Amino acid sequence: MIHCENNSAATSMESNLASPFDLNAYLRRQSSAIDEALESHLKKYPAESQTLFRALRYGVFSGGKRIRPILTLAAGEIFGAKPKILLPFACAVEMIHAYSLIHDDLPALDNDDLRRGKPTAHKVFGDGMALLAGDGLLTEAFHVLSAPDLLGAMPAAMVLQVIHELSQAVGVLGLVGGQAFDLEAENQEVDLATVELIHVRKTGALILASVRIGAQVGGARAEELSAISHYGEYLGLAFQIADDVLDAQGETATSEGAESGHHEKNKATYPAVVGIVQARERLMELSRLCFDALAPFGPKAVALRAIAGHVSERAIKSTQNH
Amino acid sequence: MIHCENNSAATSMESNLASPFDLNAYLRRQSSAIDEALESHLKKYPAESQTLFRALRYGVFSGGKRIRPILTLAAGEIFGAKPKILLPFACAVEMIHAYSLIHDDLPALDNDDLRRGKPTAHKVFGDGMALLAGDGLLTEAFHVLSAPDLLGAMPAAMVLQVIHELSQAVGVLGLVGGQAFDLEAENQEVDLATVELIHVRKTGALILASVRIGAQVGGARAEELSAISHYGEYLGLAFQIADDVLDAQGETATSEGAESGHHEKNKATYPAVVGIVQARERLMELSRLCFDALAPFGPKAVALRAIAGHVSERAIKSTQNH
Repeated sequence: MIHCENNSAATSMESNLASPFDLNAYLRRQSSAIDEALESHLKKYPAESQTLFRALRYGVFSGGKRIRPILTLAAGEIFGAKPKILLPFACAVEMIHAYSLIHDDLPALDNDDLRRGKPTAHKVFGDGMALLAGDGLLTEAFHVLSAPDLLGAMPAAMVLQVIHELSQAVGVLGLVGGQAFDLEAENQEVDLATVELIHVRKTGALILASVRIGAQVGGARAEELSAISHYGEYLGLAFQIADDVLDAQGETATSEGAESGHHEKNKATYPAVVGIVQARERLMELSRLCFDALAPFGPKAVALRAIAGHVSERAIKSTQNH
Repeated sequence: MIHCENNSAATSMESNLASPFDLNAYLRRQSSAIDEALESHLKKYPAESQTLFRALRYGVFSGGKRIRPILTLAAGEIFGAKPKILLPFACAVEMIHAYSLIHDDLPALDNDDLRRGKPTAHKVFGDGMALLAGDGLLTEAFHVLSAPDLLGAMPAAMVLQVIHELSQAVGVLGLVGGQAFDLEAENQEVDLATVELIHVRKTGALILASVRIGAQVGGARAEELSAISHYGEYLGLAFQIADDVLDAQGETATSEGAESGHHEKNKATYPAVVGIVQARERLMELSRLCFDALAPFGPKAVALRAIAGHVSERAIKSTQNH
């Protein structure tokens, strides 16, 4: 459950932003480790032999910011997990994210020609090949997660638990369900509860899972997992609201979803339902809740804290004239 | 590898068909157990609350013959595995099969309006909802396979091994890869090796996996798994050739793929490349190879033997005028 309070997050955000932690350097370093691991997973498939493999790589290496797998790494590091153990899980999370974008862009759903300024996968490879590349990436995520080489480092039952949780987060009660709700809500009058439900499922569920998987792989105890799960829930919602706000303000968002022009398609967005001012207040509140949830982890949670600040900050700034 | 020899399978098929085993009764009984288990897995999702759930159920309960999950049950039973243990694996196999048909029928791929005489999922629910229903079913398959209740009956490492193998069989080196090859081969001149490669990946890989998963869950030893894997390979190829032959003869096939009108779309099919007579000879040969592979299991393999006979028999009969 996400609680609604109306306190401002500005103070804690500023104190966080004043810390010496270099978020950009951290994101670059982690993103590069993830790219290398993704490359290593995909290199077993001959890149030039089939259009499918090129489409698959196009979807994976298309300039994404790797926020979700970075969350997996950052959450795991709090509990002392080594990158080598965390990276396969981070890669699986990113493959699922990449699949969801490829399918979301298809004519059957959002029919977007551009993503991050580049032609979408189906514009380059055709609808059929893009559909298959998405199917292949989703399947490959579970292949990576079930690889025998993970078993040297952690019990098989724990890996199964991660697969179970991730498949719930991105299935019909999570990401896929959220996309279906979103599709049905197009051109409909929707209330705030519906918008939040769509956001929680479509965007929030995978972000929450990314955080929880890192913590679980790191061996978080039950109360630690619970605290970090609150962070994941608040961050997931903040992430989508920030996208919606930047989209509504006509800015290119920091995150991946925003270039899909949801405002042009009468999609259910937070600012459309409650207005920019209330959306900004909700973002500030969610930032503060993220910081509160991380309190038990002290300085170890510096990266997760900075990511939460980063997600909200630019969207909040974009609304300064309101 | 599938070995090519030119002996006729007619004798061994006839002796098999003369056995007292009632294949139709067996198929009905297993199919009904699978339907019940699928219903039980899907009932946690409220059937009427969302179009997505209706689309998903439409894809799963649309008159399929459940051949793949029946193979999982039949293979597992040889090694004494109980239906209760085998059924979740069988359900996962069928969910993946259902997803692949929904996606294959989409306008982005085969653009079929009918399957088994009924409107395809996207004709009923729209392209976007059908795409999502397929995504949801693929994801749900891995959710079912990673459920904690499987762990009472078998080691977690073995469940992971099954997930790893299944995700390979239906991924970019298996089913999805085969569909991509098939898409690229449309309207192209293809040779026999290419047709067999497409068949082995697009149809054969999941059939082989269905058989192997049953055997693995049943605790087959390495040499038993190897023997039954030969059966699965031969059967997978026979299955697709039989479909192609029936399709070319203008008959409604016994299996699910045949109503997709591949002959109208210049798809790569076996009879189109080598002719009906050679296709029939290959089917007879594959039947014999299936029976040979099952020899070590004696009477315990009666169901697998009868299924192999059933797959080839009708297609062979349809060519009697050639």
